[in-house]
Amino acid sequence: MSAATNRSIRLARRPRGDIEADCFRFEEAPVPEIGEGEALVRGLMISLDPTIRGWLNEVDTYMPAVRIGDVVRAGAVGQVVESRCDRYAVGDLVFGMIGWQDYAVADAAGRAMNVLPPGVEPADALGIFGITGMTAYFGMLDVARPKEGDTVFVSGAAGATGSVAGQIAKLQGCRGVGTAGTDEKCKWATEELGLDACLNYKNADLAEQLDAACPDGIDVYFDNVGGEILQLALARINQGARIALCGGISGYNAVAPPPGPNNLMQLVIQRARMEGFLVLDYVSRFPEAIAQLATWVAEGKVNNRATIVDGLENTVDAFQQLFTGGNIGKLLVRVSDPS
Amino acid sequence: MSAATNRSIRLARRPRGDIEADCFRFEEAPVPEIGEGEALVRGLMISLDPTIRGWLNEVDTYMPAVRIGDVVRAGAVGQVVESRCDRYAVGDLVFGMIGWQDYAVADAAGRAMNVLPPGVEPADALGIFGITGMTAYFGMLDVARPKEGDTVFVSGAAGATGSVAGQIAKLQGCRGVGTAGTDEKCKWATEELGLDACLNYKNADLAEQLDAACPDGIDVYFDNVGGEILQLALARINQGARIALCGGISGYNAVAPPPGPNNLMQLVIQRARMEGFLVLDYVSRFPEAIAQLATWVAEGKVNNRATIVDGLENTVDAFQQLFTGGNIGKLLVRVSDPS
Repeated sequence: MSAATNRSIRLARRPRGDIEADCFRFEEAPVPEIGEGEALVRGLMISLDPTIRGWLNEVDTYMPAVRIGDVVRAGAVGQVVESRCDRYAVGDLVFGMIGWQDYAVADAAGRAMNVLPPGVEPADALGIFGITGMTAYFGMLDVARPKEGDTVFVSGAAGATGSVAGQIAKLQGCRGVGTAGTDEKCKWATEELGLDACLNYKNADLAEQLDAACPDGIDVYFDNVGGEILQLALARINQGARIALCGGISGYNAVAPPPGPNNLMQLVIQRARMEGFLVLDYVSRFPEAIAQLATWVAEGKVNNRATIVDGLENTVDAFQQLFTGGNIGKLLVRVSDPS
Repeated sequence: MSAATNRSIRLARRPRGDIEADCFRFEEAPVPEIGEGEALVRGLMISLDPTIRGWLNEVDTYMPAVRIGDVVRAGAVGQVVESRCDRYAVGDLVFGMIGWQDYAVADAAGRAMNVLPPGVEPADALGIFGITGMTAYFGMLDVARPKEGDTVFVSGAAGATGSVAGQIAKLQGCRGVGTAGTDEKCKWATEELGLDACLNYKNADLAEQLDAACPDGIDVYFDNVGGEILQLALARINQGARIALCGGISGYNAVAPPPGPNNLMQLVIQRARMEGFLVLDYVSRFPEAIAQLATWVAEGKVNNRATIVDGLENTVDAFQQLFTGGNIGKLLVRVSDPS
């Protein structure tokens, strides 16, 4: 890799269903020159999140769609390698929407990137203290609001968000039950994250296993996947249950949107609430969450793990893994090492 | 009709799909004798509500299922014709679960029936001041919580609950948009109930009509029907929208439960809440709602209408009408006149 070249991965065509390699194209171009008030940031570590899949569709959602030809949008940690503004010093580690590329230009106004607090590792900045950790924290404590003794069910329990969400539930004195897609993940979730049970959702008898794991029903469901698991959860909710809708990865690659659960009347019968949320609405409260999570991590109460893939050129492969369940914990791509 | 005979309509078999006449059987038996501490109540007016359909299924929900051979459960107003307890005097009008029959026995403990306040008509006791009025009041004001200027969408807007819910929304300073199944009902909803628009959901271009009727999107959806209209509503919700799930009549007669909306991710994107409720949880606050509704009725601000079918023998026919949209406003069966 030449330092004078900026490699980028751009959207070549919109995916129809599964993500295929030819949805993207690789481009090499000179590293951009910065102007007055700007800084040049070299990407270190990219965060791969299911929500990126939504940005690749044609329809704007809570953010504009990525346009054909644009660099794929993604949160990442980078390092300032050149600066012509006061906001950034050379050597600073920053978080921002650097995207799937080697270099990005930061300016104080348009493409704000935030300098990381000293001592925070890039992987943690993107994971436990990043968007997924914040999502777990506010989704669980602000939206789902588990009470001591509740049974809290978390799908995607070995993923970046679910693994933190499940541990937060346990710290509230709840019974924690999860789902994941491999026995290895389930083992990690029970042995390292402390869940009371974690079920491999690919097992044919998932419904019976869920009954056994939730003998007193479900008080809180933190939903990362939607689809059939949401329907199974709805069938088991208790009176006054809260379902925090975080995402619905099971449907993200569908060509046509799959039908929803056939038992929404459970919400009526059980006087239950299903609520969607976006972590973007909690930005002003991130410091509170980061402080609490940092304390839990320091006390050994929250386990934090990432799957790190090396090389920008492997980003598309790694992104496909997200939807086939290849990662445990946070999925990251290491683009370069800090200098 | 002989006063010495108690006619009753009993569940003969559980409906599979649509309600058919042979799901029920007519029985004649002597009027029950009352014992010490009991009273004999003669049915005057039966309330026909979609929720009865759920009680006819095998599965217990928020109430036990009606058993095969039992009188069909229904709220009704009756009159005390004989009393051997202090709680009831002969001539009192009472509300209770009298069911689809001429006579029921009331006792202070097991089958509590409540004496109506003086001056309240049976039709009003079952409608605006009854379960459907209470459902509209608490569902709208406690669960959906419309704010002035909100666009409030109500399905089943010409039904017993929806017609009250829509008027309450208008009294909160909202834009009110409804759906109903005939042009006559839609006309009633706009001309008499004051909705800004009411759409016949049988029209092929319902989606376009809904767009036109809700140019600023939907802030509150009061859902009485579920199904396709719920999906249309979800597609149009604004940020922070509230969906109060009151019922899902479109699916009550389905043999297999129909799939849910394919766009629940809208709840995430719009940070919106969908919440089910049961009016039974608000019983202690009924006096507050009745006082407010009585004031609005007296001021001419809430229009109150019922479709009254004559004769217990026509109850099954009338009940079928509920699901084919035969009624405007509250659907009642007049069993006998007060003496």
